[in-house]
Amino acid sequence: MRADFQSWVAAHQARFEEVLRGLLPRADIAPQRLHEAMRYAVLDGGKRVRPLLAFAAGELAGAETARVDVAAAAVELIHAYSLVHDDMPCMDDDVLRRGKPTCHVQYDEATALLVGDSLQTLAFQLLAEHRLNGHARFPHPNPLPQAGEGANESLRELHANDDASRQLEMVRLLAVASGSRGMAGGQAIDLASVGKSLTLPELEFMHIHKTGALIRAAVLLGAHCGSVSAEQLDRLDHFGKLIGLAFQVVDDVLDCEADTATLGKTAGKDADNDKPTYVSLLGIQGARDMAQRLHCEALETLAGFGDSAQRLRELADFIVLRKF
Amino acid sequence: MRADFQSWVAAHQARFEEVLRGLLPRADIAPQRLHEAMRYAVLDGGKRVRPLLAFAAGELAGAETARVDVAAAAVELIHAYSLVHDDMPCMDDDVLRRGKPTCHVQYDEATALLVGDSLQTLAFQLLAEHRLNGHARFPHPNPLPQAGEGANESLRELHANDDASRQLEMVRLLAVASGSRGMAGGQAIDLASVGKSLTLPELEFMHIHKTGALIRAAVLLGAHCGSVSAEQLDRLDHFGKLIGLAFQVVDDVLDCEADTATLGKTAGKDADNDKPTYVSLLGIQGARDMAQRLHCEALETLAGFGDSAQRLRELADFIVLRKF
Repeated sequence: MRADFQSWVAAHQARFEEVLRGLLPRADIAPQRLHEAMRYAVLDGGKRVRPLLAFAAGELAGAETARVDVAAAAVELIHAYSLVHDDMPCMDDDVLRRGKPTCHVQYDEATALLVGDSLQTLAFQLLAEHRLNGHARFPHPNPLPQAGEGANESLRELHANDDASRQLEMVRLLAVASGSRGMAGGQAIDLASVGKSLTLPELEFMHIHKTGALIRAAVLLGAHCGSVSAEQLDRLDHFGKLIGLAFQVVDDVLDCEADTATLGKTAGKDADNDKPTYVSLLGIQGARDMAQRLHCEALETLAGFGDSAQRLRELADFIVLRKF
Repeated sequence: MRADFQSWVAAHQARFEEVLRGLLPRADIAPQRLHEAMRYAVLDGGKRVRPLLAFAAGELAGAETARVDVAAAAVELIHAYSLVHDDMPCMDDDVLRRGKPTCHVQYDEATALLVGDSLQTLAFQLLAEHRLNGHARFPHPNPLPQAGEGANESLRELHANDDASRQLEMVRLLAVASGSRGMAGGQAIDLASVGKSLTLPELEFMHIHKTGALIRAAVLLGAHCGSVSAEQLDRLDHFGKLIGLAFQVVDDVLDCEADTATLGKTAGKDADNDKPTYVSLLGIQGARDMAQRLHCEALETLAGFGDSAQRLRELADFIVLRKF
């Protein structure tokens, strides 16, 4: 990781943690236990890959950081809710997440259920409420300086100068990406696949929904906070799809190779659960090759963007070359 | 129930069932089992009290029925998701709902979890996507004729002629009503209250969140589909709050009096679970008196609306005088 990129990641991660702290309901407001558990499930953990993708796409599109903060938070809350529900006994029954007891272990199952439900709701609330009198109203006091490298091409026709329309489109995007034909649908297919042997296209279909849809949405939401042409948006969408799939392939490789301490979650879980993975289907080297191929393709889709896509390229490298 | 009102209810219930059928994902689209279970949890059941309130408020505000359909569906999907999750073993552990096996009994717990999650997402998706080029695009082919009695006062200042802003406000309203400081928060307080004795204000606080918030939102969302003044909206909000509370008080009375067959869900459940209710706190006659008082207050808030509020008045009567 280049030093410059490393400090970009660290700065955004640290600042974003404060953004999340400010956007989550305070633990001293009723119902206290629920709010405390919501904060437990979201704060102090995770690489924030989706928010980082949103920030990088936002920089490409010349968006204000404070505006991307809200979109990135919405995506991360959806991700966090899915982890809380996914870890529950009726799903993956996992006890460790991000190096801490999972939410239902730390609190109880009923609370974990409500935590996930409420985090999802909050994601949509954030996308809808951070505006006033038709003008965006964002809470963070110290936005980072703008990259100033954003594409200055024509706004998408539909959304020219129409903040509310654009926000509504972001609500729609996030909902489609996370619902029964997106992330939740992928989890349903995942459940149905336990103990079955899937073909590569079937496995891909599952992961494009389960992991890919939200990663793709993170890129698009970041871009929607600024100005990009419809054609650029299509290329970013394709980039998001490829990198989302690469993310899952790498996850499978790491799950197979790493130990629990490094991963911060129970390792080897998928193999134990008799779930099909890229490693079980392609072997470890085959999976590594596939990740490399997706990585190359993803970088190709960014070719036309020049310097403005530098952070997205670095994130693509980071996602594929990470060791945890 | 007056014959005229009875046929209004029946017509809207029947038409709305078709609206829901059209808006829910088809059961032959992947993931099939999840989509089938979502349809199972929503269709063929329930009195549709919240949608009816939205339709009545929409008539008062002179809204197009097709527009209210989407808002009413969003509210009903949130309600349906909450029932699916509420019935799960880690919450109320209930096996019967609307005269049918609950979702996790009919399918399995993991599917029920994903059904609830996906119904919530779909609610927000619907509110965001039913528009095109800034103009509302609604799916139902045969909207009912308009009542034509809607208030013709000034639009709320903020939202004049701005469909997207208005839709975004509806997303925000629904999210606030159903999240950790609304419905889900009320359920968290409910959980924490098992085996405890609450005071009347504490019980009221719980139900204003658990049941009241969404009923209130139904009235407001219906009104937002048409044109009402800010002052009228405030009065409708107060009406929604009172009638939401009355709904819960009546529920407690019925839960105590009725048998399981009439109710379509397990009767006496709250008392069995050692949950505080209005009946346990006020006695059966005290609870009946309270419902009557709330009913009167609710009707008073509608005094200035004249004929346009007739359906809302009739619904208030229906909610308080219902036997199931």
